[in-house]
Amino acid sequence: MTTARTTPYQELESRFERLSKIGEAAGILQWDMATNMPTGGAVARAGQLSVLKVLRHEILCHPALADFLDAATADRGLDAWQRANLAAMARRRARAVAVDADLVRRLSEAGSACEMLWRTAKDKADFAIIVPALTELRDLVAERAAALGEGLGLDPYDALLDGFEPGGRAAAIAPVFDDLALFLPGFTDDVLARQEAAGPPLDLPGPFAIDAQRGLCRSMMEAVGFDFTHGRLDESHHPFCGGVPEDIRITTRYSEGDFMPGLMGVLHETGHALYEQGLPVDWRHQPVGGARGMVLHESQSLMIEMQACRSAQFIAFAAPRMAAAFNGSGPAWEVDNIHRHTTRVARGFIRVDADEVTYPAHVIMRFHLERAMLAGDLDVADLPGAWAEQTRALLGLTPADDSEGCLQDIHWYDGAWGYFPTYTLGAMAAAQLFAAAVQARPGIPDGLAAGDFTPLVGWLRENVHQKASLLSTDELLAEATGSPLNAEAFKTHLRARYLA
Amino acid sequence: MTTARTTPYQELESRFERLSKIGEAAGILQWDMATNMPTGGAVARAGQLSVLKVLRHEILCHPALADFLDAATADRGLDAWQRANLAAMARRRARAVAVDADLVRRLSEAGSACEMLWRTAKDKADFAIIVPALTELRDLVAERAAALGEGLGLDPYDALLDGFEPGGRAAAIAPVFDDLALFLPGFTDDVLARQEAAGPPLDLPGPFAIDAQRGLCRSMMEAVGFDFTHGRLDESHHPFCGGVPEDIRITTRYSEGDFMPGLMGVLHETGHALYEQGLPVDWRHQPVGGARGMVLHESQSLMIEMQACRSAQFIAFAAPRMAAAFNGSGPAWEVDNIHRHTTRVARGFIRVDADEVTYPAHVIMRFHLERAMLAGDLDVADLPGAWAEQTRALLGLTPADDSEGCLQDIHWYDGAWGYFPTYTLGAMAAAQLFAAAVQARPGIPDGLAAGDFTPLVGWLRENVHQKASLLSTDELLAEATGSPLNAEAFKTHLRARYLA
Repeated sequence: MTTARTTPYQELESRFERLSKIGEAAGILQWDMATNMPTGGAVARAGQLSVLKVLRHEILCHPALADFLDAATADRGLDAWQRANLAAMARRRARAVAVDADLVRRLSEAGSACEMLWRTAKDKADFAIIVPALTELRDLVAERAAALGEGLGLDPYDALLDGFEPGGRAAAIAPVFDDLALFLPGFTDDVLARQEAAGPPLDLPGPFAIDAQRGLCRSMMEAVGFDFTHGRLDESHHPFCGGVPEDIRITTRYSEGDFMPGLMGVLHETGHALYEQGLPVDWRHQPVGGARGMVLHESQSLMIEMQACRSAQFIAFAAPRMAAAFNGSGPAWEVDNIHRHTTRVARGFIRVDADEVTYPAHVIMRFHLERAMLAGDLDVADLPGAWAEQTRALLGLTPADDSEGCLQDIHWYDGAWGYFPTYTLGAMAAAQLFAAAVQARPGIPDGLAAGDFTPLVGWLRENVHQKASLLSTDELLAEATGSPLNAEAFKTHLRARYLA
Repeated sequence: MTTARTTPYQELESRFERLSKIGEAAGILQWDMATNMPTGGAVARAGQLSVLKVLRHEILCHPALADFLDAATADRGLDAWQRANLAAMARRRARAVAVDADLVRRLSEAGSACEMLWRTAKDKADFAIIVPALTELRDLVAERAAALGEGLGLDPYDALLDGFEPGGRAAAIAPVFDDLALFLPGFTDDVLARQEAAGPPLDLPGPFAIDAQRGLCRSMMEAVGFDFTHGRLDESHHPFCGGVPEDIRITTRYSEGDFMPGLMGVLHETGHALYEQGLPVDWRHQPVGGARGMVLHESQSLMIEMQACRSAQFIAFAAPRMAAAFNGSGPAWEVDNIHRHTTRVARGFIRVDADEVTYPAHVIMRFHLERAMLAGDLDVADLPGAWAEQTRALLGLTPADDSEGCLQDIHWYDGAWGYFPTYTLGAMAAAQLFAAAVQARPGIPDGLAAGDFTPLVGWLRENVHQKASLLSTDELLAEATGSPLNAEAFKTHLRARYLA
């Protein structure tokens, strides 16, 4: 409803609001696909999602958008949030127009085909059958990276990374990861030696009824601050946090044999949810009002899961509630034993099962390998060998087959290249933010011990959530913690938790 | 993706395919709203649905669409389906452009406001508090009816009715309803006298566990032919059949005190579902490939619920399964007693609780009243009096208050005027189609007695579902049954079931 009095900036806000709402519709459809959709609905759903994607692309690529962006940039009356919003809009458009529609279509098709084949290859632990499809996809991803890089003035890898983490640069990440790669092996040895000396924790005797797990997860989410009038907890094959800020959809999966992964998964996703639920209402539907990027998003999930909920303080609150949920009693259910379970370290092959000490090794090797494949320095066919070599170097292990090796993660096979580094950068940011939060509000640990997350979440609301995308990740961290993103707080946290 | 070789007709198909997929996305979001959405998600969801609605409106009103329609109309190479598709497209556009955007917006706002207030008025059984809101809404509906009527060359009421049932005309309905209004009171007296002479059926002893009801409903849906790889059964406050042909979403509600309404509701919605699942795949996403209208849609739900599933034959199959589901035994669970429950007739105030004998009276009085209000012959403030008068005349009852009177249905209060007649026209069509089906395939009743719906559904697929919107309702009925829509088969059915 453009009227004569609408400014170019207002016109942009109106178009991006529409873009946002179409994206939200797609988000709910994706949640439904993972939780409810019967298998026979897949083709129809793909058609619906594809149209919504095309509609969003058309809004971003509309020629008039460029004119409005030019005109709004000349508007001297905009405040800091509006200017940041304008920059975020321009960035979105630049990414959309940099890649032509035909390449987007070929990538989408090649990604779907490769992902389908990946499921078979993983089941059979046979990498060879997917080499042609992954090679084709890698070539298309490289083509996209080059086009994006040219449009945005970035190196190709950075152009992909920037899509997940605006401002993320491999040149800044590489030395941090190199430093962690030096620090962690020896540190892990020390932790394992100490654990071995103490002996294993007592087994928590199962089975654990799924309904009891659901109830425990809900009550823990409520303790953390999740608002069930604005969200749900459901089940899906891969846990995720979806939906929209007023209607967050968290999923998890339960196993009767062990309740801890399901619960910790829920708490992890609750951290993502708190970020979304805490974004500024005034900037709802505008690019500047969205989460800053995947590094801060992962920092919020790891803040809740790793920093808060695996802490000795929170376990003091949670352990008796776990015991009550499963009618457990005796030494296995005591706080100290439960805490030993939640801080157990072990080198293993599978990234998603890794603890916070060994997790960075998994990320660092993927960062090396995806950059090498993208640059053409590593042939796709040679990935298993390179994978084994990196696994030996960083974890001291040799995978028995490709299903516990280079076939374990979906990312590369569905086209998500440049994503992996954000996991470990998020872990670093979480440690940095938590240390600053505790310094600013010393009552936080006592709060966790009482199941009261208000002090922690209050600090996060103010220093992270309410900032949305106003600042860069480094600017936000510098304001909140005194320094840009770095690994010192993460190392300090690991030393304190595992060797103190 | 228009290329130089795309014909105007092909361009239209492409635009209507997009329209269809956006509508499907909205359909899934509406299902989610009724089944899953937390209350706090309502505002965001309204925003998503509103954008999808605007997008569809923009496609229909786009100036280029008129040019493509003109050019395609001159195309001599189109076959009968394509020509019917073109006519359906033109009809959709004509309806969209006839009403200006401002009126659509005012109607939407007034409808939402009136519906909210209606819930309060109904709870308090106080019609007076909703008179101003309903008067305003009636005026806007009348304004829309006039605009649509002018654009389509129809009387205002017919212009509304036509939106639910293309080709539906009050002048054709009125004499049929007058005839039923003469026939039914005496017929109902006869049925009630006969029932009274026989005494009431034995009570079915509850409570009925909800889980057992769910299982029974699923197994009965499967017997009827519902494909659970292409659909789901869930729960919501108001039962409905939503989703898309490959992914049908049926909902119902259960009461521990009585399993029959929930089960019969599920079977009713399964009839709607079979129609959608049986539409021609070749015309998926095109207007001609959709259901013909609400009369045939309701005929399919009543075909399954009333004609098939309340028949003595089907109850012979279902009764032992009902008994098994609830561990029932003894005379109450015998076939004859269950069948007496499923064919019980009673005059009552509430339309949705009415049996098939008294249901038309509820519809006929609403048809009279909505036409009178729309024409300005009945003031909204005088509705309760007129309602009581009609209830006495057609049902011999006087409502105690407005909640069991003119406040019972949501339709008028959320702007759905001109819808009511389709319920009884659907019942007539169901009887007409069922009689023709049994004549063509005499094995149908034996099939029902064995829980085998293949003969019946096969005939429906061929004569109704696969025809989609190729023919008018009357043309389709004439081809399938030998005559256009009329009440003779319905009366014959009622006589045979209730007085034979």
